[in-house]
Amino acid sequence: MVSTIELSKRQEQIVQIVKDNGPITGEAIADRLSLTRATLRPDLAILTMAGYLEARPRVGYFYTGKTGQQLLADKIKKIKVMDHQSIPVVVNESLSVYDAIVTMFLEDVGTLFVVDKSSLLVGVLSRKDLLRASLGNQDLKSIPVTIIMTRMPNITMCEKDDLLLEVAHKLIDKQIDALPVVKHSERGIEVIGRITKTNMTKALVALAGDEIL
Amino acid sequence: MVSTIELSKRQEQIVQIVKDNGPITGEAIADRLSLTRATLRPDLAILTMAGYLEARPRVGYFYTGKTGQQLLADKIKKIKVMDHQSIPVVVNESLSVYDAIVTMFLEDVGTLFVVDKSSLLVGVLSRKDLLRASLGNQDLKSIPVTIIMTRMPNITMCEKDDLLLEVAHKLIDKQIDALPVVKHSERGIEVIGRITKTNMTKALVALAGDEIL
Repeated sequence: MVSTIELSKRQEQIVQIVKDNGPITGEAIADRLSLTRATLRPDLAILTMAGYLEARPRVGYFYTGKTGQQLLADKIKKIKVMDHQSIPVVVNESLSVYDAIVTMFLEDVGTLFVVDKSSLLVGVLSRKDLLRASLGNQDLKSIPVTIIMTRMPNITMCEKDDLLLEVAHKLIDKQIDALPVVKHSERGIEVIGRITKTNMTKALVALAGDEIL
Repeated sequence: MVSTIELSKRQEQIVQIVKDNGPITGEAIADRLSLTRATLRPDLAILTMAGYLEARPRVGYFYTGKTGQQLLADKIKKIKVMDHQSIPVVVNESLSVYDAIVTMFLEDVGTLFVVDKSSLLVGVLSRKDLLRASLGNQDLKSIPVTIIMTRMPNITMCEKDDLLLEVAHKLIDKQIDALPVVKHSERGIEVIGRITKTNMTKALVALAGDEIL
Protein backbone atom coordinates (compact mmCIF):
# COMPACT_ATOMS: atom_id res chain seq x y z
CA MET A 1 0.00 0.00 0.00
CA VAL A 2 1.23 3.44 -0.90
CA SER A 3 -0.29 6.55 0.53
CA THR A 4 0.04 10.29 0.24
CA ILE A 5 0.28 12.58 3.22
CA GLU A 6 0.22 16.33 3.32
CA LEU A 7 2.88 17.71 5.66
CA SER A 8 1.79 20.00 8.47
CA LYS A 9 3.23 23.49 8.87
CA ARG A 10 5.38 22.24 11.73
CA GLN A 11 6.68 19.30 9.71
CA GLU A 12 7.67 21.65 6.90
CA GLN A 13 9.54 23.77 9.45
CA ILE A 14 11.38 20.69 10.67
CA VAL A 15 12.41 19.72 7.14
CA GLN A 16 13.71 23.26 6.62
CA ILE A 17 15.69 23.22 9.87
CA VAL A 18 17.31 19.88 9.04
CA LYS A 19 17.99 21.04 5.48
CA ASP A 20 19.82 24.13 6.78
CA ASN A 21 21.52 22.64 9.84
CA GLY A 22 21.72 18.86 9.46
CA PRO A 23 23.04 16.67 10.84
CA ILE A 24 21.10 17.88 13.85
CA THR A 25 19.75 16.06 16.90
CA GLY A 26 16.06 15.82 17.77
CA GLU A 27 16.84 17.78 20.91
CA ALA A 28 18.35 20.66 18.90
CA ILE A 29 15.39 20.72 16.52
CA ALA A 30 13.01 20.87 19.48
CA ASP A 31 15.03 23.77 20.96
CA ARG A 32 14.73 25.80 17.79
CA LEU A 33 10.97 25.33 17.76
CA SER A 34 10.64 25.88 21.53
CA LEU A 35 8.97 22.50 21.85
CA THR A 36 9.81 19.34 23.77
CA ARG A 37 11.51 16.38 22.16
CA ALA A 38 8.44 14.28 23.06
CA THR A 39 6.10 16.62 21.20
CA LEU A 40 8.22 16.30 18.07
CA ARG A 41 8.55 12.53 18.17
CA PRO A 42 5.53 11.70 15.95
CA ASP A 43 6.53 14.39 13.43
CA LEU A 44 10.07 13.05 13.23
CA ALA A 45 8.75 9.51 12.84
CA ILE A 46 6.52 10.59 9.96
CA LEU A 47 9.25 12.58 8.22
CA THR A 48 11.63 9.66 8.50
CA MET A 49 9.08 7.16 7.19
CA ALA A 50 8.11 9.44 4.36
CA GLY A 51 11.75 9.59 3.31
CA TYR A 52 12.41 13.29 3.93
CA LEU A 53 14.77 12.69 6.81
CA GLU A 54 17.18 9.98 7.77
CA ALA A 55 18.12 9.34 11.38
CA ARG A 56 21.63 8.19 12.24
CA PRO A 57 22.23 7.04 15.85
CA ARG A 58 24.40 9.38 17.92
CA VAL A 59 24.65 11.87 15.01
CA GLY A 60 21.16 13.13 14.36
CA TYR A 61 18.83 13.80 11.46
CA PHE A 62 19.95 14.30 7.86
CA TYR A 63 17.95 15.75 5.03
CA THR A 64 17.76 13.06 2.33
CA GLY A 65 17.24 15.50 -0.48
CA LYS A 66 14.07 13.68 -1.46
CA THR A 67 11.05 15.89 -1.78
CA GLY A 68 7.47 14.75 -1.55
CA GLN A 69 7.31 15.36 -5.24
CA GLN A 70 10.12 12.91 -5.89
CA LEU A 71 8.52 10.28 -3.75
CA LEU A 72 5.21 10.62 -5.59
CA ALA A 73 7.18 10.51 -8.83
CA ASP A 74 8.43 7.05 -8.00
CA LYS A 75 4.94 5.67 -8.57
CA ILE A 76 4.47 7.35 -11.95
CA LYS A 77 7.94 6.25 -13.04
CA LYS A 78 6.92 2.63 -12.80
CA ILE A 79 4.25 2.86 -15.51
CA LYS A 80 5.22 1.08 -18.75
CA VAL A 81 4.18 1.81 -22.34
CA MET A 82 2.39 -1.55 -22.48
CA ASP A 83 0.08 -0.44 -19.65
CA HIS A 84 -1.49 2.20 -21.89
CA GLN A 85 -0.69 1.51 -25.58
CA SER A 86 -3.39 1.35 -28.27
CA ILE A 87 -3.79 -0.73 -31.41
CA PRO A 88 -1.79 0.69 -34.36
CA VAL A 89 -3.37 1.56 -37.70
CA VAL A 90 -1.04 0.77 -40.59
CA VAL A 91 -1.28 1.61 -44.29
CA ASN A 92 0.67 0.39 -47.28
CA GLU A 93 3.40 2.56 -48.77
CA SER A 94 1.63 2.59 -52.13
CA LEU A 95 -1.39 4.48 -50.70
CA SER A 96 -2.16 7.99 -51.93
CA VAL A 97 -2.23 11.01 -49.62
CA TYR A 98 -5.95 11.35 -50.33
CA ASP A 99 -6.66 7.75 -49.28
CA ALA A 100 -4.47 8.21 -46.20
CA ILE A 101 -6.64 11.15 -45.09
CA VAL A 102 -9.78 9.06 -45.71
CA THR A 103 -8.25 6.18 -43.70
CA MET A 104 -7.47 8.55 -40.85
CA PHE A 105 -11.15 9.57 -40.68
CA LEU A 106 -12.47 6.02 -41.08
CA GLU A 107 -10.17 4.64 -38.38
CA ASP A 108 -10.52 7.76 -36.25
CA VAL A 109 -6.81 8.12 -35.47
CA GLY A 110 -4.41 11.04 -35.73
CA THR A 111 -1.36 9.07 -36.86
CA LEU A 112 -0.88 6.30 -39.44
CA PHE A 113 2.11 3.99 -39.68
CA VAL A 114 3.33 3.17 -43.17
CA VAL A 115 4.59 -0.37 -43.82
CA ASP A 116 6.20 -2.09 -46.79
CA LYS A 117 5.09 -5.34 -48.48
CA SER A 118 6.66 -7.35 -45.65
CA SER A 119 4.64 -5.37 -43.07
CA LEU A 120 7.79 -3.68 -41.78
CA LEU A 121 7.75 -0.04 -40.64
CA VAL A 122 8.98 2.45 -43.23
CA GLY A 123 7.23 5.68 -42.25
CA VAL A 124 4.87 7.70 -40.06
CA LEU A 125 2.09 10.03 -41.19
CA SER A 126 0.65 12.64 -38.87
CA ARG A 127 -2.35 14.94 -39.40
CA LYS A 128 0.22 17.73 -39.64
CA ASP A 129 2.02 15.96 -42.54
CA LEU A 130 -1.25 15.47 -44.40
CA LEU A 131 -2.40 19.02 -43.75
CA ARG A 132 0.91 20.39 -45.05
CA ALA A 133 0.49 18.32 -48.22
CA SER A 134 -3.00 19.71 -48.71
CA LEU A 135 -1.59 23.26 -48.92
CA GLY A 136 0.23 22.37 -52.12
CA ASN A 137 -1.70 22.80 -55.32
CA GLN A 138 -1.36 19.13 -56.22
CA ASP A 139 -3.91 16.38 -56.73
CA LEU A 140 -3.83 14.52 -53.39
CA LYS A 141 -4.99 11.34 -55.16
CA SER A 142 -1.84 11.17 -57.26
CA ILE A 143 0.77 11.73 -54.51
CA PRO A 144 1.93 8.56 -52.72
CA VAL A 145 2.33 8.80 -48.94
CA THR A 146 6.03 7.95 -49.27
CA ILE A 147 6.62 11.50 -50.59
CA ILE A 148 5.34 13.21 -47.45
CA MET A 149 5.83 10.71 -44.62
CA THR A 150 8.53 10.89 -41.97
CA ARG A 151 10.84 8.02 -42.81
CA MET A 152 13.58 5.96 -41.20
CA PRO A 153 15.91 6.87 -39.55
CA ASN A 154 13.93 9.96 -38.47
CA ILE A 155 11.06 8.06 -36.86
CA THR A 156 10.84 8.38 -33.08
CA MET A 157 9.86 4.97 -31.74
CA CYS A 158 9.47 3.16 -28.46
CA GLU A 159 9.14 -0.39 -27.15
CA LYS A 160 6.46 -1.89 -24.94
CA ASP A 161 8.78 -2.16 -21.93
CA ASP A 162 9.82 1.49 -22.12
CA LEU A 163 8.66 3.83 -19.39
CA LEU A 164 5.53 5.81 -20.20
CA LEU A 165 7.25 8.91 -18.84
CA GLU A 166 10.14 8.61 -21.31
CA VAL A 167 7.59 8.53 -24.12
CA ALA A 168 5.78 11.54 -22.63
CA HIS A 169 9.07 13.45 -22.74
CA LYS A 170 9.63 12.42 -26.38
CA LEU A 171 6.13 13.51 -27.41
CA ILE A 172 6.66 16.91 -25.80
CA ASP A 173 10.25 17.48 -26.95
CA LYS A 174 9.67 16.40 -30.55
CA GLN A 175 6.20 18.03 -30.67
CA ILE A 176 4.52 14.92 -32.04
CA ASP A 177 1.17 13.33 -31.26
CA ALA A 178 2.04 9.66 -31.36
CA LEU A 179 4.85 7.11 -31.45
CA PRO A 180 4.80 3.61 -32.88
CA VAL A 181 5.45 0.86 -30.35
CA VAL A 182 7.84 -1.43 -32.21
CA LYS A 183 9.51 -4.81 -31.99
CA HIS A 184 12.93 -5.28 -33.56
CA SER A 185 13.50 -8.64 -35.26
CA GLU A 186 15.92 -10.02 -37.86
CA ARG A 187 13.30 -9.12 -40.45
CA GLY A 188 13.29 -5.47 -39.48
CA ILE A 189 10.98 -3.25 -37.43
CA GLU A 190 7.45 -4.45 -36.75
CA VAL A 191 4.74 -2.12 -35.42
CA ILE A 192 2.90 -3.68 -32.49
CA GLY A 193 1.24 -0.64 -30.94
CA ARG A 194 0.61 3.05 -30.86
CA ILE A 195 1.06 5.46 -27.98
CA THR A 196 -0.42 8.93 -28.15
CA LYS A 197 -1.15 12.06 -26.14
CA THR A 198 -4.64 10.61 -25.71
CA ASN A 199 -3.06 7.64 -23.93
CA MET A 200 -1.16 10.11 -21.72
CA THR A 201 -4.43 11.88 -20.89
CA LYS A 202 -5.99 8.51 -20.05
CA ALA A 203 -2.99 7.64 -17.87
CA LEU A 204 -3.57 10.82 -15.89
CA VAL A 205 -7.24 9.92 -15.45
CA ALA A 206 -6.29 6.36 -14.44
CA LEU A 207 -3.88 7.67 -11.79
CA ALA A 208 -6.74 9.69 -10.38
CA GLY A 209 -8.72 6.50 -10.05
CA ASP A 210 -11.21 6.07 -12.91
CA GLU A 211 -14.04 7.54 -10.95
CA ILE A 212 -16.80 9.54 -12.54
CA LEU A 213 -16.44 13.17 -11.55
CA MET B 1 4.37 19.50 0.49
CA VAL B 2 2.79 16.18 -0.26
CA SER B 3 4.57 12.92 0.14
CA THR B 4 4.02 9.26 -0.53
CA ILE B 5 4.78 6.65 2.06
CA GLU B 6 4.84 2.91 1.67
CA LEU B 7 3.11 1.22 4.59
CA SER B 8 5.10 -1.26 6.65
CA LYS B 9 3.91 -4.82 7.18
CA ARG B 10 2.83 -3.88 10.71
CA GLN B 11 0.90 -0.84 9.52
CA GLU B 12 -0.95 -2.96 6.99
CA GLN B 13 -1.84 -5.37 9.80
CA ILE B 14 -3.18 -2.47 11.86
CA VAL B 15 -5.34 -1.24 8.95
CA GLN B 16 -6.71 -4.78 8.57
CA ILE B 17 -7.50 -5.08 12.28
CA VAL B 18 -9.31 -1.73 12.34
CA LYS B 19 -11.13 -2.61 9.12
CA ASP B 20 -12.42 -5.85 10.66
CA ASN B 21 -13.00 -4.66 14.25
CA GLY B 22 -13.33 -0.89 14.27
CA PRO B 23 -14.11 1.16 16.21
CA ILE B 24 -11.28 -0.27 18.29
CA THR B 25 -9.00 1.32 20.87
CA GLY B 26 -5.23 1.61 20.48
CA GLU B 27 -4.92 -0.66 23.51
CA ALA B 28 -7.01 -3.38 21.88
CA ILE B 29 -5.02 -3.14 18.63
CA ALA B 30 -1.79 -3.47 20.63
CA ASP B 31 -3.19 -6.55 22.42
CA ARG B 32 -3.95 -8.30 19.15
CA LEU B 33 -0.42 -7.69 17.93
CA SER B 34 1.14 -8.56 21.30
CA LEU B 35 2.81 -5.16 21.36
CA THR B 36 2.66 -2.24 23.75
CA ARG B 37 0.52 0.82 23.09
CA ALA B 38 3.70 2.93 23.08
CA THR B 39 5.29 0.86 20.32
CA LEU B 40 2.24 1.35 18.15
CA ARG B 41 1.95 5.09 18.71
CA PRO B 42 4.05 6.24 15.69
CA ASP B 43 2.27 3.74 13.41
CA LEU B 44 -1.14 4.97 14.51
CA ALA B 45 -0.04 8.58 14.05
CA ILE B 46 1.12 7.83 10.52
CA LEU B 47 -2.02 5.90 9.58
CA THR B 48 -4.19 8.70 10.90
CA MET B 49 -2.22 11.41 9.09
CA ALA B 50 -2.23 9.43 5.90
CA GLY B 51 -6.01 9.24 6.09
CA TYR B 52 -6.42 5.47 6.48
CA LEU B 53 -7.69 5.71 10.04
CA GLU B 54 -9.65 8.24 11.99
CA ALA B 55 -9.35 8.53 15.75
CA ARG B 56 -12.35 9.50 17.86
CA PRO B 57 -11.71 10.30 21.54
CA ARG B 58 -13.05 7.70 23.99
CA VAL B 59 -14.26 5.51 21.11
CA GLY B 60 -11.21 4.40 19.19
CA TYR B 61 -9.97 4.07 15.65
CA PHE B 62 -12.21 3.84 12.60
CA TYR B 63 -11.25 2.69 9.12
CA THR B 64 -11.99 5.56 6.73
CA GLY B 65 -12.34 3.32 3.70
CA LYS B 66 -9.77 5.31 1.78
CA THR B 67 -7.15 3.31 -0.10
CA GLY B 68 -3.72 4.54 -1.08
CA GLN B 69 -5.00 4.87 -4.63
CA GLN B 70 -7.82 7.15 -3.49
CA LEU B 71 -5.47 9.30 -1.47
CA LEU B 72 -3.10 9.68 -4.43
CA ALA B 73 -6.14 10.54 -6.51
CA ASP B 74 -6.98 13.34 -4.09
CA LYS B 75 -3.78 15.11 -5.12
CA ILE B 76 -4.47 14.86 -8.84
CA LYS B 77 -8.03 16.02 -8.25
CA LYS B 78 -6.78 19.30 -6.86
CA ILE B 79 -5.03 20.37 -10.07
CA LYS B 80 -6.80 23.25 -11.81
CA VAL B 81 -6.94 24.18 -15.50
CA MET B 82 -5.03 27.41 -14.74
CA ASP B 83 -2.08 25.35 -13.46
CA HIS B 84 -1.44 24.00 -16.95
CA GLN B 85 -3.24 26.13 -19.56
CA SER B 86 -1.44 27.60 -22.60
CA ILE B 87 -1.85 30.83 -24.52
CA PRO B 88 -4.71 30.66 -27.05
CA VAL B 89 -4.24 31.38 -30.74
CA VAL B 90 -7.27 33.17 -32.19
CA VAL B 91 -8.18 34.01 -35.77
CA ASN B 92 -10.84 36.25 -37.24
CA GLU B 93 -14.04 34.75 -38.64
CA SER B 94 -13.32 36.26 -42.03
CA LEU B 95 -10.15 34.15 -42.50
CA SER B 96 -10.00 31.56 -45.29
CA VAL B 97 -9.45 27.87 -44.60
CA TYR B 98 -6.13 28.14 -46.46
CA ASP B 99 -4.91 30.96 -44.23
CA ALA B 100 -6.13 29.10 -41.14
CA ILE B 101 -3.94 26.12 -42.08
CA VAL B 102 -0.99 28.46 -42.65
CA THR B 103 -1.65 30.12 -39.25
CA MET B 104 -1.73 26.71 -37.59
CA PHE B 105 1.75 25.98 -38.97
CA LEU B 106 3.14 29.43 -38.18
CA GLU B 107 1.83 29.36 -34.61
CA ASP B 108 2.60 25.67 -34.22
CA VAL B 109 -0.73 24.74 -32.63
CA GLY B 110 -3.30 22.05 -33.37
CA THR B 111 -6.40 24.12 -32.61
CA LEU B 112 -7.44 27.68 -33.49
CA PHE B 113 -10.22 29.66 -31.85
CA VAL B 114 -12.36 31.81 -34.11
CA VAL B 115 -13.51 35.19 -32.81
CA ASP B 116 -15.80 37.90 -34.16
CA LYS B 117 -15.02 41.61 -34.54
CA SER B 118 -15.56 42.13 -30.79
CA SER B 119 -13.01 39.39 -30.02
CA LEU B 120 -15.74 37.09 -28.72
CA LEU B 121 -15.61 33.34 -29.29
CA VAL B 122 -17.70 32.10 -32.22
CA GLY B 123 -15.96 28.88 -33.25
CA VAL B 124 -13.22 26.29 -32.93
CA LEU B 125 -11.05 24.86 -35.72
CA SER B 126 -9.16 21.61 -35.26
CA ARG B 127 -6.61 19.97 -37.57
CA LYS B 128 -9.31 17.38 -38.20
CA ASP B 129 -11.76 20.08 -39.41
CA LEU B 130 -9.15 21.55 -41.75
CA LEU B 131 -8.11 18.15 -43.04
CA ARG B 132 -11.74 17.25 -43.77
CA ALA B 133 -12.12 20.49 -45.73
CA SER B 134 -9.03 19.69 -47.77
CA LEU B 135 -10.67 16.49 -49.03
CA GLY B 136 -13.28 18.53 -50.88
CA ASN B 137 -12.38 19.64 -54.35
CA GLN B 138 -12.75 23.30 -53.46
CA ASP B 139 -10.28 26.15 -53.47
CA LEU B 140 -9.26 26.43 -49.80
CA LYS B 141 -8.46 30.12 -50.30
CA SER B 142 -12.07 30.95 -51.10
CA ILE B 143 -13.80 29.09 -48.23
CA PRO B 144 -14.15 31.10 -44.99
CA VAL B 145 -13.46 29.24 -41.75
CA THR B 146 -17.04 29.91 -40.60
CA ILE B 147 -18.22 27.23 -43.05
CA ILE B 148 -16.21 24.43 -41.47
CA MET B 149 -15.66 25.45 -37.84
CA THR B 150 -17.46 23.97 -34.85
CA ARG B 151 -19.73 26.77 -33.68
CA MET B 152 -21.72 27.74 -30.61
CA PRO B 153 -23.52 26.06 -28.89
CA ASN B 154 -21.52 22.94 -29.87
CA ILE B 155 -18.19 24.17 -28.52
CA THR B 156 -16.90 22.30 -25.48
CA MET B 157 -15.32 24.88 -23.18
CA CYS B 158 -13.86 25.16 -19.72
CA GLU B 159 -12.93 27.84 -17.20
CA LYS B 160 -9.61 28.44 -15.47
CA ASP B 161 -10.91 27.25 -12.10
CA ASP B 162 -12.21 23.95 -13.50
CA LEU B 163 -10.46 20.77 -12.47
CA LEU B 164 -7.86 19.54 -14.94
CA LEU B 165 -9.28 16.06 -14.53
CA GLU B 166 -12.75 17.16 -15.67
CA VAL B 167 -11.15 18.58 -18.81
CA ALA B 168 -9.19 15.36 -19.33
CA HIS B 169 -12.49 13.45 -19.25
CA LYS B 170 -14.03 15.88 -21.76
CA LEU B 171 -11.07 15.58 -24.16
CA ILE B 172 -11.32 11.79 -24.04
CA ASP B 173 -15.11 11.52 -24.21
CA LYS B 174 -15.55 14.04 -27.03
CA GLN B 175 -12.40 12.88 -28.85
CA ILE B 176 -11.01 16.37 -29.20
CA ASP B 177 -7.47 17.70 -28.86
CA ALA B 178 -8.08 21.02 -27.14
CA LEU B 179 -10.63 23.18 -25.31
CA PRO B 180 -10.77 26.95 -25.08
CA VAL B 181 -10.43 28.31 -21.55
CA VAL B 182 -13.11 31.01 -21.48
CA LYS B 183 -14.42 33.84 -19.36
CA HIS B 184 -18.11 34.71 -19.47
CA SER B 185 -18.93 38.40 -19.37
CA GLU B 186 -21.90 40.61 -20.31
CA ARG B 187 -20.24 41.08 -23.68
CA GLY B 188 -20.17 37.34 -24.38
CA ILE B 189 -17.52 34.63 -24.24
CA GLU B 190 -13.88 35.67 -24.20
CA VAL B 191 -11.08 33.19 -24.84
CA ILE B 192 -8.34 33.48 -22.23
CA GLY B 193 -6.49 30.21 -22.68
CA ARG B 194 -6.13 26.88 -24.37
CA ILE B 195 -5.88 23.44 -22.78
CA THR B 196 -4.75 20.47 -24.84
CA LYS B 197 -3.68 16.85 -24.65
CA THR B 198 -0.13 18.23 -24.73
CA ASN B 199 -0.90 20.05 -21.47
CA MET B 200 -2.21 16.76 -20.05
CA THR B 201 1.02 15.03 -21.08
CA LYS B 202 2.98 17.83 -19.41
CA ALA B 203 0.84 17.53 -16.28
CA LEU B 204 1.76 13.85 -16.09
CA VAL B 205 5.45 14.74 -16.47
CA ALA B 206 5.10 17.48 -13.84
CA LEU B 207 3.53 15.05 -11.38
CA ALA B 208 6.55 12.83 -11.89
CA GLY B 209 8.77 15.76 -11.06
CA ASP B 210 10.33 17.37 -14.14
CA GLU B 211 13.55 15.44 -13.80
CA ILE B 212 15.56 14.32 -16.76
CA LEU B 213 15.16 10.61 -17.14
